[in-house]
Amino acid sequence: MSESTVAIVMGSDSDWPIMEEAANVLDGFGISYSVQVISAHRMPLETIDFAQNAHTDGVRVIIAGAGGAAALPGVIAALTPLPVIGVPIALKVLDGMDSLLSIVQMPSGIPVATVGVGAAKNAGLLAARMLGISSPEISAKIIANMAQIHDEAKAKGENLKARRRQKTGF
Amino acid sequence: MSESTVAIVMGSDSDWPIMEEAANVLDGFGISYSVQVISAHRMPLETIDFAQNAHTDGVRVIIAGAGGAAALPGVIAALTPLPVIGVPIALKVLDGMDSLLSIVQMPSGIPVATVGVGAAKNAGLLAARMLGISSPEISAKIIANMAQIHDEAKAKGENLKARRRQKTGF
Amino acid sequence: MSESTVAIVMGSDSDWPIMEEAANVLDGFGISYSVQVISAHRMPLETIDFAQNAHTDGVRVIIAGAGGAAALPGVIAALTPLPVIGVPIALKVLDGMDSLLSIVQMPSGIPVATVGVGAAKNAGLLAARMLGISSPEISAKIIANMAQIHDEAKAKGENLKARRRQKTGF
Amino acid sequence: MSESTVAIVMGSDSDWPIMEEAANVLDGFGISYSVQVISAHRMPLETIDFAQNAHTDGVRVIIAGAGGAAALPGVIAALTPLPVIGVPIALKVLDGMDSLLSIVQMPSGIPVATVGVGAAKNAGLLAARMLGISSPEISAKIIANMAQIHDEAKAKGENLKARRRQKTGF
Amino acid sequence: MSESTVAIVMGSDSDWPIMEEAANVLDGFGISYSVQVISAHRMPLETIDFAQNAHTDGVRVIIAGAGGAAALPGVIAALTPLPVIGVPIALKVLDGMDSLLSIVQMPSGIPVATVGVGAAKNAGLLAARMLGISSPEISAKIIANMAQIHDEAKAKGENLKARRRQKTGF
Amino acid sequence: MSESTVAIVMGSDSDWPIMEEAANVLDGFGISYSVQVISAHRMPLETIDFAQNAHTDGVRVIIAGAGGAAALPGVIAALTPLPVIGVPIALKVLDGMDSLLSIVQMPSGIPVATVGVGAAKNAGLLAARMLGISSPEISAKIIANMAQIHDEAKAKGENLKARRRQKTGF
Amino acid sequence: MSESTVAIVMGSDSDWPIMEEAANVLDGFGISYSVQVISAHRMPLETIDFAQNAHTDGVRVIIAGAGGAAALPGVIAALTPLPVIGVPIALKVLDGMDSLLSIVQMPSGIPVATVGVGAAKNAGLLAARMLGISSPEISAKIIANMAQIHDEAKAKGENLKARRRQKTGF
Amino acid sequence: MSESTVAIVMGSDSDWPIMEEAANVLDGFGISYSVQVISAHRMPLETIDFAQNAHTDGVRVIIAGAGGAAALPGVIAALTPLPVIGVPIALKVLDGMDSLLSIVQMPSGIPVATVGVGAAKNAGLLAARMLGISSPEISAKIIANMAQIHDEAKAKGENLKARRRQKTGF
Repeated sequence: MSESTVAIVMGSDSDWPIMEEAANVLDGFGISYSVQVISAHRMPLETIDFAQNAHTDGVRVIIAGAGGAAALPGVIAALTPLPVIGVPIALKVLDGMDSLLSIVQMPSGIPVATVGVGAAKNAGLLAARMLGISSPEISAKIIANMAQIHDEAKAKGENLKARRRQKTGF
Repeated sequence: MSESTVAIVMGSDSDWPIMEEAANVLDGFGISYSVQVISAHRMPLETIDFAQNAHTDGVRVIIAGAGGAAALPGVIAALTPLPVIGVPIALKVLDGMDSLLSIVQMPSGIPVATVGVGAAKNAGLLAARMLGISSPEISAKIIANMAQIHDEAKAKGENLKARRRQKTGF
Repeated sequence: MSESTVAIVMGSDSDWPIMEEAANVLDGFGISYSVQVISAHRMPLETIDFAQNAHTDGVRVIIAGAGGAAALPGVIAALTPLPVIGVPIALKVLDGMDSLLSIVQMPSGIPVATVGVGAAKNAGLLAARMLGISSPEISAKIIANMAQIHDEAKAKGENLKARRRQKTGF
Repeated sequence: MSESTVAIVMGSDSDWPIMEEAANVLDGFGISYSVQVISAHRMPLETIDFAQNAHTDGVRVIIAGAGGAAALPGVIAALTPLPVIGVPIALKVLDGMDSLLSIVQMPSGIPVATVGVGAAKNAGLLAARMLGISSPEISAKIIANMAQIHDEAKAKGENLKARRRQKTGF
Repeated sequence: MSESTVAIVMGSDSDWPIMEEAANVLDGFGISYSVQVISAHRMPLETIDFAQNAHTDGVRVIIAGAGGAAALPGVIAALTPLPVIGVPIALKVLDGMDSLLSIVQMPSGIPVATVGVGAAKNAGLLAARMLGISSPEISAKIIANMAQIHDEAKAKGENLKARRRQKTGF
Repeated sequence: MSESTVAIVMGSDSDWPIMEEAANVLDGFGISYSVQVISAHRMPLETIDFAQNAHTDGVRVIIAGAGGAAALPGVIAALTPLPVIGVPIALKVLDGMDSLLSIVQMPSGIPVATVGVGAAKNAGLLAARMLGISSPEISAKIIANMAQIHDEAKAKGENLKARRRQKTGF
Repeated sequence: MSESTVAIVMGSDSDWPIMEEAANVLDGFGISYSVQVISAHRMPLETIDFAQNAHTDGVRVIIAGAGGAAALPGVIAALTPLPVIGVPIALKVLDGMDSLLSIVQMPSGIPVATVGVGAAKNAGLLAARMLGISSPEISAKIIANMAQIHDEAKAKGENLKARRRQKTGF
Repeated sequence: MSESTVAIVMGSDSDWPIMEEAANVLDGFGISYSVQVISAHRMPLETIDFAQNAHTDGVRVIIAGAGGAAALPGVIAALTPLPVIGVPIALKVLDGMDSLLSIVQMPSGIPVATVGVGAAKNAGLLAARMLGISSPEISAKIIANMAQIHDEAKAKGENLKARRRQKTGF
């Protein structure tokens, strides 16, 4: 894992379809990352081991996804000086409200950078922004990415207008 | 700690005025206990150390109080085979809903016995019930305590009736 | 029912597909149990009869599942000195929030050990932990079960890594 | 209690300051009532006894106030053919949402007529409306009471206008 | 409508599949009823007309179902001395929480007897209980219905036991 | 009332301290208004009368404040072609969530322009914006008011900076 | 865009199926409108540009739909003196509660006229009511539309009655 | 502002008592920062100006606090490639739930690193962690700070133990 700038961890392999979006973002930015299933509840010692060593293993940002009583991001944040991004993942009930509150309402002293429910893509982008603080190259890519997001949204809007024009004549 | 049957732990010393009610209950039942501040976020290694050793140190039940992103009960439950009772403690906002969901919505495999928001007294009583499974003496005390709760409630009710009678003549 | 260490009760036979997971856990631990449909609202007298006699019938832990205005676990807890585990079952609306609050927010004096919404498997595991207090055999099985949960989670994680390696070459 | 048309019951004597408003309404309507503290959790057998006998004791409507995991109205409704009015009483946290859901979300077959959080006055009025079904006298009093509520609200409105006119000259 | 003891009204014809359950209950009790679509928002004058005249038209209880900003039960209650039962109907979003609060949180003076989200069957049963206050015949039917509910629940429970016995040999 | 451009109505005179802010805004804009207590539940016929006649009485916008099961704005909207602005007023419990949902979740066909909980000032400003559609004078005042809001916020910010500079030397 | 009386804007083209209902309403009223995708987050400068110029471009009312952290309506309202109608659009989770609160809870000084979750049709009708303030023609159409809504609801009610009569003979 | 590594902005000067905690943290870490009141709703153009230029002005991390319909963090994030930390500030009602959802539920593409309700101290610490990615000095201070947090929590725990020992003799 020593070559990974970002570590993507999640409480269960079933979280991967959501967390994969963070990986895709990092791929797009050319940022190296590792992917790992660790769980504060099912694999507590691996979690501690990971959290204690990530910093010296070369990791710079940690993205942690978890659902329900989602302790993973907070427990990792308690054992690393690195910024930890928490991704609340919705269970079958409660729409992720439990996951969100379990991640965001951290006690004073140990912050977790929380993104929206299921927002793994934004977690990847947030990691890039953090890395962009000291990397003009990544920062430039963020600016480019924002332009692309802008252009795609605009194009979709134009497309909607065009379709309506075709239909209504205006 | 080896002489304590129950371990009462909490995320912050400011939780003590609430958690003390659990201690009072155990005092009433003559059940030995220890009191300790450990925090999954501020003292993670002590938490792990505590959780891993409680079982062999003679502890039989753990009561853990925590607020907000309340990871403590769950993280302990992940490292001990003992039953863990979680007490959600309300922060200044959200009325303990964050604490409750963070404690009760545990992943499959790692249970936490959750009581109501701020219900440390019930946590003490639940610990007694668990210990009563194998202790006829404690079981008898629970039955006596339930009778006492019943009698006190009844007496208060009678008292209310008496006050009303005095006031209304009926 | 006298030979059952755990009594699994539920408000409706439609709860069985969820509550069955508690039974499966107990089967795995070799803990005897009974299964019964009783309802605080539709079968109140049977509920009272059950709750009053469980203790002397040899039951050691009660698991009670209910949904909506879920009075069953609390009413049973009011009539037995045994520990009662409440399983909130979600109705079609409100995602089990009504069931959770109806079970967990017990008045001072009568505790219910509440698990997550639909978390019958955890209820079974919690019962085992309670019984493990006085049974080294069960306690050992819990430790083994936790190891198994750990290993399965780890294996799934490794498997995810392997699939990704196959796909990405890393 | 045999002379009481309405039975006002509550889970704790501390509920009285709220529940008293129901009594005041009934006083105003000249409807006889009894007041009793019974608790589904602290006094379950008295609750059952009360619920089973209210009907034959001459009670016609039951008003039950309770807070938190508020099982009282529902458990009574399960044992009486009488209409039961539930008054959700707010605890220190959660603003009565737990009490409301515990009372209103009854299973199919056993209804509780739920009023707003802390709305004991409306519970008294609802009892009067139920009794008014077969009592032209009470029905006439309800109509008069509605007129009075109307007039008071109107007078307060006029008063507000007057105060503003004095202040603004319009 | 003069021959109807109960008036079932609803805000939209799309509420009928839910509200029909109230009608079915009344059919079972042999209680006459009318069915009407009136809306506080789309048919306000008909609503007022209905509410003002129901009492003298022979109606004894009103059941009103509505969803979202569900003003119907409250507006009717404001114009009739009869007891009004409100049935909160869930919209596509918010699980009926908006409907429930719009119906149950009535101002002091004007009560609505609220049942659970979508609980039209319980609304029918509550109407029967109200009518049973002055009708021994209906009261007897309620008792019989409660016995039937009890027996069906018990039978389903026995059936579940039988199926399990067949499968497990116990 | 015929000279009033805006009608400010509220369910209770106790709402006035909040609703007064709407009046103050209109005073500032030189927009005439009337103030009236009417209640969908306590004064239904006055409400209907008001709603049906406001349009022809010269009213152009209606501001309606109400709390709890807040039917007033919606019922008025059902009887007038005028735009109705709803102000949810918080009761002692539930923080205005009941009031908000009761006002905003209107059925299709009858809109209410809802502002934030207790946001009577914004209701006044919204009324001004609506009237500004056809009044260049009011529109100019809105622009001026927005500039003033901007300047005040900026000044407060500068003031904060100044206080900090004094304290820290920077 | 200068010929459009109403501007319908939305945060994403995927909001169109919902927002289209506002357009349909305006078509029905013969009110001209433009449709545009702009996003406070993905197209902030276009949003500002739009908001600053709408007023002088002849727009009279703005309808803005957005979901999640729905900043669009508020940001536009901050830059225009025109009335802005906000339509909260539900994301996959949280049922639009996030969207609703993000739109309705505006700070003092900048109002947004919020309609229900997904209630684009009501947004269109609210725009018409606002325009009707100064247009007797539109006002007349609103009255006609309300009559039509009334008649359709009534007809559906009659139809329900007829279907039931056919089935039951009453 | 060019010498500030972190920019602390907030929607209102009344947010300062909360946001000051972020400043205190940065003081403790020796990280330079600016403090500014800007509001997406009351000072939109300054907000845009700030957001567009922060990056080139030398700012590396932005901390933005806002309450209610809290658009500020998101709007800034839309115009800067820098990481933006959002601090939800509770209004008088709703306990900050509106603020939290308005900040955390950002659309895909534009992330905001959200901390708990009122958790400005954690926002400061999160900023430090982000800056620590490329600053071994700051990183070392974070580690030291975590040790200090740990030691203080531990000391408070020891102190609690000592006080109890004094009182109970154990």
